[in-house]
Amino acid sequence: MQIAFLLYPRFTALDIVGPYDVLSRLPGAEPWFVAKESGPVRNDNGRLQLVAEKTLDEVPSPEILVVPGGSGTTDAADEATLRWIRNAHATSTWTTSVCTGSLLLAGAGLLDGQTATSHWSAEEQLEALGAIYRAERFIRVGKLITAAGVSAGIDMALYLAGEIAGPTTAQAIQLLIEYDPQPPYDAGSMAKAPPDAVKTLQQMFNT
Amino acid sequence: MQIAFLLYPRFTALDIVGPYDVLSRLPGAEPWFVAKESGPVRNDNGRLQLVAEKTLDEVPSPEILVVPGGSGTTDAADEATLRWIRNAHATSTWTTSVCTGSLLLAGAGLLDGQTATSHWSAEEQLEALGAIYRAERFIRVGKLITAAGVSAGIDMALYLAGEIAGPTTAQAIQLLIEYDPQPPYDAGSMAKAPPDAVKTLQQMFNT
Repeated sequence: MQIAFLLYPRFTALDIVGPYDVLSRLPGAEPWFVAKESGPVRNDNGRLQLVAEKTLDEVPSPEILVVPGGSGTTDAADEATLRWIRNAHATSTWTTSVCTGSLLLAGAGLLDGQTATSHWSAEEQLEALGAIYRAERFIRVGKLITAAGVSAGIDMALYLAGEIAGPTTAQAIQLLIEYDPQPPYDAGSMAKAPPDAVKTLQQMFNT
Repeated sequence: MQIAFLLYPRFTALDIVGPYDVLSRLPGAEPWFVAKESGPVRNDNGRLQLVAEKTLDEVPSPEILVVPGGSGTTDAADEATLRWIRNAHATSTWTTSVCTGSLLLAGAGLLDGQTATSHWSAEEQLEALGAIYRAERFIRVGKLITAAGVSAGIDMALYLAGEIAGPTTAQAIQLLIEYDPQPPYDAGSMAKAPPDAVKTLQQMFNT
């Protein structure tokens, strides 16, 4: 079961490593990090490099496709990458995105008129590309699953693991990665974050 | 603020990328992936490579040290690595581990007679190295913080972000990574996982 994890410059690492450490534990998984060119790819803050072992052309028909988000999503939406996504989706069993990765699925024309999610900051961009944004943890429409920002990929991947291998295997993987979240704060969505935290985040981004 | 993220062969990717994507967002953060030799390092199932840009010798005195776990932890416990951990800890502001990374801290002599945690499967190994195991999400003793398995590093790192930069900044980072966990199953600890999931996990490891 080939699983393609897409990399591109300025991806967000947790977007892709969360689903990786769930889905790569599935029986029969054959995970590949792929990119337009093979070799190291730098993340959004430039201090982390994940290695793409295969080019897009070398993994044209994965059974599962995982597309992460990041500050580089818009720049990644070139014709070669969108064509690869479109072609891979034509034969995939599951096509998934995390965070602003849904902008790439939308750019490839996969989300026209469909409900989908993304990082909370990308609502307008997603809708401009033809999708109908909903603030959900993840949204499944047929074989397409879009997840919310960054850490939502872990929840999405556990759900997908259950669909593929059954709930008991998904629970076994959850136990393996000890995913029993106990966040010390409760500020993980725009509905929950205190106004001061939202303001601080805006300041962190503008400087 | 130098933050050293240790890599060694057969580390678990989410152990280190979870804390990375929290701590590297702190104002003034200077994160480095470090290993005995610079270059790509393969993870526990061999399909992911993160690049160490610096050798241990090049980052001798980080302010924060993050040590991940993985199936390679025991093999990583050589004298050079343990000496680096011991020396880094002597001048660090914070010394942390995720998952079986606590076995390396214990091997370096940092946890003698202290309460600490680890992946649930490593209780006996941790105690054999002189620590007192507790099944907690993370445990802080002074400047030392040990976290439970894999995904627990995210909770630990958010706590640490709050200690370093205050709760508002920690909440801003939580919002940025949209850490509002909604696991589709509730099997993330030995106390919660159904017996069938535990049995399935044992079978997955033995084959």
